[in-house]
Amino acid sequence: MKIPTIIPCILSLLICCSACAGDPLPSWQDTAPKQAIIAFVGKVTQPGSSDFVPVAERIATFDNDGTLWAEQPVYFQTAFSLDRIKALAPQHPEWTNREPFASVLKGDLKSALAGGDQAQLEMTIAVQAGMTTDEYKRAVTDWLAVARHPRTKRLYTEMVYQPMLELLAYLRTNGFKTYIVSGGGVDFMRPWSEKVYGIPPEQVIGSSLKRKFEFRDGRPVLVSTPELNLIDDNVGKPVGIESQIGRRPIASFGNSDGDRQMMQWTAAGSGPRFCLFVHHTDAEREWAYDRKSADGRFDKALDEARAKGWTVASMKDDWKFIFVGDQK
Amino acid sequence: MKIPTIIPCILSLLICCSACAGDPLPSWQDTAPKQAIIAFVGKVTQPGSSDFVPVAERIATFDNDGTLWAEQPVYFQTAFSLDRIKALAPQHPEWTNREPFASVLKGDLKSALAGGDQAQLEMTIAVQAGMTTDEYKRAVTDWLAVARHPRTKRLYTEMVYQPMLELLAYLRTNGFKTYIVSGGGVDFMRPWSEKVYGIPPEQVIGSSLKRKFEFRDGRPVLVSTPELNLIDDNVGKPVGIESQIGRRPIASFGNSDGDRQMMQWTAAGSGPRFCLFVHHTDAEREWAYDRKSADGRFDKALDEARAKGWTVASMKDDWKFIFVGDQK
Repeated sequence: MKIPTIIPCILSLLICCSACAGDPLPSWQDTAPKQAIIAFVGKVTQPGSSDFVPVAERIATFDNDGTLWAEQPVYFQTAFSLDRIKALAPQHPEWTNREPFASVLKGDLKSALAGGDQAQLEMTIAVQAGMTTDEYKRAVTDWLAVARHPRTKRLYTEMVYQPMLELLAYLRTNGFKTYIVSGGGVDFMRPWSEKVYGIPPEQVIGSSLKRKFEFRDGRPVLVSTPELNLIDDNVGKPVGIESQIGRRPIASFGNSDGDRQMMQWTAAGSGPRFCLFVHHTDAEREWAYDRKSADGRFDKALDEARAKGWTVASMKDDWKFIFVGDQK
Repeated sequence: MKIPTIIPCILSLLICCSACAGDPLPSWQDTAPKQAIIAFVGKVTQPGSSDFVPVAERIATFDNDGTLWAEQPVYFQTAFSLDRIKALAPQHPEWTNREPFASVLKGDLKSALAGGDQAQLEMTIAVQAGMTTDEYKRAVTDWLAVARHPRTKRLYTEMVYQPMLELLAYLRTNGFKTYIVSGGGVDFMRPWSEKVYGIPPEQVIGSSLKRKFEFRDGRPVLVSTPELNLIDDNVGKPVGIESQIGRRPIASFGNSDGDRQMMQWTAAGSGPRFCLFVHHTDAEREWAYDRKSADGRFDKALDEARAKGWTVASMKDDWKFIFVGDQK
């Protein structure tokens, strides 16, 4: 064995060792959800157990908005769209007479968002179509470096949930491959998912526009078109999972009705399965919303979770800390 | 450290050790292509080198038909379609009057394939649309277990190239993530790619039909529709790569004009890049074809490879053995 080759081996040995020590989920209360997670991971990783799952099949899928990071008062991608529309307005004189853009430019957020998901989708497409993948990535990265959440004044990437970061790490330590499966844009998440969540771009599944290969200034580029490729929400989530992974997850994590079909698809496989919803119950430390919320509505999925015995984790009761950094 | 946890650590140590020993590409002649591969891998894995590439960025993409396994006298997926059409004919009386199906059922392969790629695509869609992902997977697996290549009488999965298996393993040992990026159907390749190539389903990118989430007999299923999702060939290859990986490969391997845009996309990234074409030059041990072949045409890409100094490996001159098992 050459010396350079032995180094990764020793490193992997050290990583194995450190991962065994201590409580893997210190920001979770010692309540039922934490116990259910640990029991599930214990049985699927126990060699010889009838519930044992080979490493290659340990696929875990996570919704993003409201599951890994916050989604109030608006989806963070929508906050990005709003800022981009203002920045790009000089190049789009037609926006002054066209909704939802006109309201955005007047600073009337309520009217701009009155069109619901459709209005947000139109804004998303407007700020991405025509850009190359590299240009869009740069725009997202530049924005995230400076934009602040209106209430907490934190960077948006500091609005991620500490208990979920611990859960991602715990699953990976136990041989799981962790994926994001989000209604949000895949190109919006990939530039920072590895740094923030430890999830590489190839394990991020999301909504997307169709892309086109062409040459600009003699160099090959990929350009986003205004045509939708996939809405990775509701029935689109199992479709996105099959398209990109080609295996059924054994564990899924979400927070809203948009995650219901992903859970149904996960739960319908053979062998041990685990489904968990994050319930936004903490008006003081985060937000409290479920059945009547426009974004992140948790209604049919809450009924189904209760009927089927899926785990529901209450932010207020089951999490010691909410955001990364809160525990310091 | 618990005992069960130490086992994978020791295993990974052993795997590291065994991979360093001996010639990693024993079925390649010691000619320019092998030397170019080894020089490239050496420099991107050399810590401290200006050409060093972090493990996460070591993405290598491989075409399948004609690059990892043979593609003559017809694409193997077309051989599957032909057999399926015959098997399904009783349920499709309309096929007796519709081309290319009528010719297939008469046993007139030449007329059936006269429609070129379009005819093959129609057959592909006809044998998959309406099936659930599980049903289709079973059909592919059952067929591959018994179908034999018309000339060699081998199983199709024994028509894979030994030098390319060694190359896949060599790259993985050096921290590369190996992907298939094929014009063939993703659902046709995923059931066997892990067993045959060591490439898991989530690292297989291919052409696909749109899928639909629905309930059948009270259970959630994914059903293929007759509508195309992606033709993962030519300009579709960089699109498929971006969609599923979200990173640009640093090395790509192909054999035909359909791989040209994948190579252009790979080569246009910054830092060290490697592009290799397999040239079918061995009429005795395999097939000899390039500029004038209907399937696997290698014409514009051959010119571009020569102009840009991309590596072209001649099966006849650069490979000691062709198919898996030949070296025994």
